[in-house]
Amino acid sequence: MTTVKAVSGSASEVASAKASPRERLLDAAAELFEREGVGVGTDALCRAAGVSKRSMYQLFDSKDAIIAAALERRARAVSAFLLPPPDAPGSPRERMLHVFRRLEEAAQDPGYCGCPHVSTLVELKDLGHPASVVALRYKAETLAFLRAEAERAGAADPELLARRLALVFDGAATRAGTGVDRLDGLALSTAAALIDAACAGR
Amino acid sequence: MTTVKAVSGSASEVASAKASPRERLLDAAAELFEREGVGVGTDALCRAAGVSKRSMYQLFDSKDAIIAAALERRARAVSAFLLPPPDAPGSPRERMLHVFRRLEEAAQDPGYCGCPHVSTLVELKDLGHPASVVALRYKAETLAFLRAEAERAGAADPELLARRLALVFDGAATRAGTGVDRLDGLALSTAAALIDAACAGR
Repeated sequence: MTTVKAVSGSASEVASAKASPRERLLDAAAELFEREGVGVGTDALCRAAGVSKRSMYQLFDSKDAIIAAALERRARAVSAFLLPPPDAPGSPRERMLHVFRRLEEAAQDPGYCGCPHVSTLVELKDLGHPASVVALRYKAETLAFLRAEAERAGAADPELLARRLALVFDGAATRAGTGVDRLDGLALSTAAALIDAACAGR
Repeated sequence: MTTVKAVSGSASEVASAKASPRERLLDAAAELFEREGVGVGTDALCRAAGVSKRSMYQLFDSKDAIIAAALERRARAVSAFLLPPPDAPGSPRERMLHVFRRLEEAAQDPGYCGCPHVSTLVELKDLGHPASVVALRYKAETLAFLRAEAERAGAADPELLARRLALVFDGAATRAGTGVDRLDGLALSTAAALIDAACAGR
């Protein structure tokens, strides 16, 4: 399941000899923060990245800056995985469901940790933190994608459908990431039911 | 809005002179962990509770035990707030929607922090932690309530409807608690749409 691997990140990618110290640090940070939380110390981070603390502080002003930069890098990979390319074929309905198919696929990975944006927001509890700003920006991006497709699909209220789908996405990612539910098609079928209810008779 | 207050907890309750040191510790812990995360140190906890560290360790073996006991105490208040009493009147549909009306009400509080069970699971990232066990038990309790009502409502697949509603609940609580969305009726209308789709023609 290569697509899921690409989203989960992996230790082998981190250890890649070609990666710069900055890239190694951000990849190790993204993986460690996601698996263990943003409270992971800088010692463990430097060890995992194979980068000295001195180098780390030459590259980043603070641990907060690392959390934000690591999430930004991770977010780009997550969005590329979740959202269909702009020129990909498929009806608006199919393009919305694509997001949930990808979520279902990712959630099958035993190492799945949920949505990194949600986890970061829950853990930091500080909307002013630079990483929270990154998380909110990517959450808004996904919502905008869903709203545009809902409009193209002819939903009675595209904004409402997009926000409903975003609820389902975050609920599903969080329940799967924390081990409360295994999904097994639940997120996909819930999204489909809401899309069909919003577009009925159109 | 007294019902919301009761769920949010408050400093004045914590400082109540009649409360035992154990109760003061657990109330302060629930409030601090929810607002700032389970990483809050025992010094801050003892200060907020007005209890010495020595007394704290006479009452609890470890901080992990405090996290679990505080969540258990908080969970009972949350369940009493969210779930209708067994003998309360109302159709099964209304009883399911009651949970979402309460969630909408709680989310209007500017201090709303989301579902404490979800936050605890996201922060601890350890299903074997005693507090995670508490969180999973209460999550299962809510699901069982929804499943029983979905069955009484004549849903085509009561288990599926209950799991869908649980997704919506957790997504809504998390988005409202982290400041990503303000709800304003979104959780309630989404739940109603899913209930109506599941019970159509019955």
